[in-house]
Amino acid sequence: MAKNKGPRRPKAETPKGFRDYFGAEVTARKAMLDRIAAVYHRYGFDALETSAVETVEALGKFLPDVDRPNEGVFAWEEDADWLALRYDLTAPLARVAAQYRNDLPSPYRRYAMGPVWRNEKPGPGRFRQFYQCDADTVGAASVAADAEICAMLSDALEEVGIPRGDYVIRVNNRKVLNGVMEVAGILDPADPSKFEHERGIVLRAIDKLDRLGVEGVRALLGEGRKDESGDFTKGAGLGAVQSDVVMGFMDALRDSGAATCARLRELVGSSQGGTEGVGELVEIAALLDSQGYGPDRIIIDPSVVRGLGYYTGPVFEAELTFEILDEKGRPRQFGSVAGGGRYDDLVKRFTGQSVPATGVSIGVDRLLAALAAKGRLDDAALGPVVVTVMDRTRMADYMGMVNELRAAGIRAEMYLGNPKNFGNQLKYADKRQSPVAIIQGEDEAARDVVQVKDLILGAKLAVDATVEEWKSQPAQVEVPRADLVATVREIMGRHG
Amino acid sequence: MAKNKGPRRPKAETPKGFRDYFGAEVTARKAMLDRIAAVYHRYGFDALETSAVETVEALGKFLPDVDRPNEGVFAWEEDADWLALRYDLTAPLARVAAQYRNDLPSPYRRYAMGPVWRNEKPGPGRFRQFYQCDADTVGAASVAADAEICAMLSDALEEVGIPRGDYVIRVNNRKVLNGVMEVAGILDPADPSKFEHERGIVLRAIDKLDRLGVEGVRALLGEGRKDESGDFTKGAGLGAVQSDVVMGFMDALRDSGAATCARLRELVGSSQGGTEGVGELVEIAALLDSQGYGPDRIIIDPSVVRGLGYYTGPVFEAELTFEILDEKGRPRQFGSVAGGGRYDDLVKRFTGQSVPATGVSIGVDRLLAALAAKGRLDDAALGPVVVTVMDRTRMADYMGMVNELRAAGIRAEMYLGNPKNFGNQLKYADKRQSPVAIIQGEDEAARDVVQVKDLILGAKLAVDATVEEWKSQPAQVEVPRADLVATVREIMGRHG
Repeated sequence: MAKNKGPRRPKAETPKGFRDYFGAEVTARKAMLDRIAAVYHRYGFDALETSAVETVEALGKFLPDVDRPNEGVFAWEEDADWLALRYDLTAPLARVAAQYRNDLPSPYRRYAMGPVWRNEKPGPGRFRQFYQCDADTVGAASVAADAEICAMLSDALEEVGIPRGDYVIRVNNRKVLNGVMEVAGILDPADPSKFEHERGIVLRAIDKLDRLGVEGVRALLGEGRKDESGDFTKGAGLGAVQSDVVMGFMDALRDSGAATCARLRELVGSSQGGTEGVGELVEIAALLDSQGYGPDRIIIDPSVVRGLGYYTGPVFEAELTFEILDEKGRPRQFGSVAGGGRYDDLVKRFTGQSVPATGVSIGVDRLLAALAAKGRLDDAALGPVVVTVMDRTRMADYMGMVNELRAAGIRAEMYLGNPKNFGNQLKYADKRQSPVAIIQGEDEAARDVVQVKDLILGAKLAVDATVEEWKSQPAQVEVPRADLVATVREIMGRHG
Repeated sequence: MAKNKGPRRPKAETPKGFRDYFGAEVTARKAMLDRIAAVYHRYGFDALETSAVETVEALGKFLPDVDRPNEGVFAWEEDADWLALRYDLTAPLARVAAQYRNDLPSPYRRYAMGPVWRNEKPGPGRFRQFYQCDADTVGAASVAADAEICAMLSDALEEVGIPRGDYVIRVNNRKVLNGVMEVAGILDPADPSKFEHERGIVLRAIDKLDRLGVEGVRALLGEGRKDESGDFTKGAGLGAVQSDVVMGFMDALRDSGAATCARLRELVGSSQGGTEGVGELVEIAALLDSQGYGPDRIIIDPSVVRGLGYYTGPVFEAELTFEILDEKGRPRQFGSVAGGGRYDDLVKRFTGQSVPATGVSIGVDRLLAALAAKGRLDDAALGPVVVTVMDRTRMADYMGMVNELRAAGIRAEMYLGNPKNFGNQLKYADKRQSPVAIIQGEDEAARDVVQVKDLILGAKLAVDATVEEWKSQPAQVEVPRADLVATVREIMGRHG
């Protein structure tokens, strides 16, 4: 029944592709991020919180080429400048590393956690604002920095509740891939820009191995591939021999890191960059092995390339290896929850000087989903004890009960709605997932007692109690007012 | 030396009015907010995190009246809609309360913490992105809800480190002010829109009492006021008698809450709304008194009105009463760090139905500044122990030391820069505010010992000392490699 009078009312809606997070959705994520931050802190990483807003110029990747640079970012014009919401935490880090290069310690280890924004078409489970959680070391050329990031990622995953054996961190090196491309004839060290387009296609094809399978990737290396919808993706145009070389790279995983590296060394042949890359992998594996981060946690795996173009050396990806059921109830591997690598050119954009950097980004929502699947989330936070209001003139007494409970560290509240309908108060307690409700009417007040209702037991009884059990009302006890806190504590202890 | 070749490099700068937060600036704020959140949680408040982006329509206050609604908010057009960054946490709460009104418990207690954005001219210490920390109860008409918010605010201030006696929470009621305006003849209950403009001027004038003094406020109540720069602000145009009534209200504070309320009752005379407002104040004071929140923490104070137009009942403000030195070294009261009140009409914008609501917002940056002034900030977080690299071929050994320290819960890192120049490693440790540095050269390795340097004790050590000078310092001990962790722990314990 729309009204015809008065101004149109605004719609109470989140913008398309955005969402709100309630209660445990907020606190479970926060608890997870706090645990990760503690690991990062122990590793000597410092917190950094940049502003959500950057100049489009500093973000770089999405420079405006139309009237309004709305490709990928949320942007707006201010005076002569375009401003935009950050789309990741790496671009702001590069800006910070350049801006404060004379003040920051070098190497600079930093972690950052917070929302980023993407101006993309929203879809089911795809939001335009989501959390990222990054750790990076800027100014360290040594692969010891990459090894440290991998070890720290391993520690962080275990710290939040992914048991050892349920994850693996795969490490590869872009230099090795480049060496293989050199052998395949699509990279000329003397003219790096030649075949750049083809190499991009190869990179993205390899990155899709788990989705497209060997045949799909092979098609993309060659002429191209028609997907299920009939759309055709043009391939890199490699010949059969060239494709064999690339596919051989992806198939180079062996039983041990040493054997894999030996195989890679064969594959990169005389490529100087490729040989260097294999050497780095050997060094990373040795450093990690020496610290007990063996192949049960971190392995050398040539199939990992990471889609992003800016990686220049080691790349890594954390994959969860346990199975979950997908929307159709079929078991599938959980998959990737974090990834990163070395990118030596991002700071150079600003300063002209190459600055070595390496880092990792955890997919916060995916890791949260994984913890939920493992039953490891801190989302079971109980609702508050609800002190009901039986007598409006005795608010101070009820408030006193609440205060005693709170002082004892027990989450508690007085019912603040209209107390007239007692049923509403119990419905409220139910909606709040309260473990316990407190009742004190005129009669109880006169006798200086309270009724303490165990709502968890009550819910259980409501489902499967016998008539006798029900009549005996085991879920409700009357105790002296002075025993209120002790009684509540005891009941809550029962439900752990 | 600008280069003439190549594309122009982007500037590495935060946009005007935005800033970055480093290390302890992030973690000290987080620690403070965590403490506040724990109090709010204990009071039964649930976390809510809305998206940073809202439709301009939902934000309401800043509806576009020009081509681009850039007054006060950062906004951009998307398809037919205008989107904007939230400018506070109350407008999104009103939207949420309307959008999920059938699913949320009622009353709905929620807290929210996060950045908000204001498209205002930046100034010294004024940023266009800053944190807010809010707690609100939606759907509770009872002033017990207001009393609870005041008690919770008091608990939160003490929890973060503001001792009792160093703050006071002042409570007033807009209804009382309205009653006074009725008596002064600038509010007609039968025609509330009449004199609305004048009442706005009166409200803002009263809110400036501490800045402008009695004379300044009186001028604004009358014809107007010329400020120091010569700018003239038009006044409300009240006559002398009318102004006397209003000024009498601001002067109604008495020795006890009861006496203040009695004086207010006189002032509002026969105004029905005003009498109701005084009754609410009496009730709030009684509820708080009964819980031990006496006038040493919370007082009835008619001079508090809060500038915002949307308050409809009780308003409150937390003021820190200790003195700090201002930029010019003069002592001054710290002033307000939090404020709030009852606003019963914000949800109505969406639903047409009035929903009672009350809440408080803590000025995060101001409270942090207060804690810093009191020396109560968690910003003394020590830097990591730095394990220096004397021998590039023994990275695994150094990494092993770091890992042992980390496993013992000690923040530690290996120097990851170029180890060639040992002085740089010491400079680095200095910049990191490291408490301890570890050194193991070839000689020490052969003897299975390490040098453990107490950097706090040796703080005056020249950063360019040679290795030999460094080693001769008394703050340095040589211990067996096996005693590394115990030695570091002992030194750090010394510095507490």
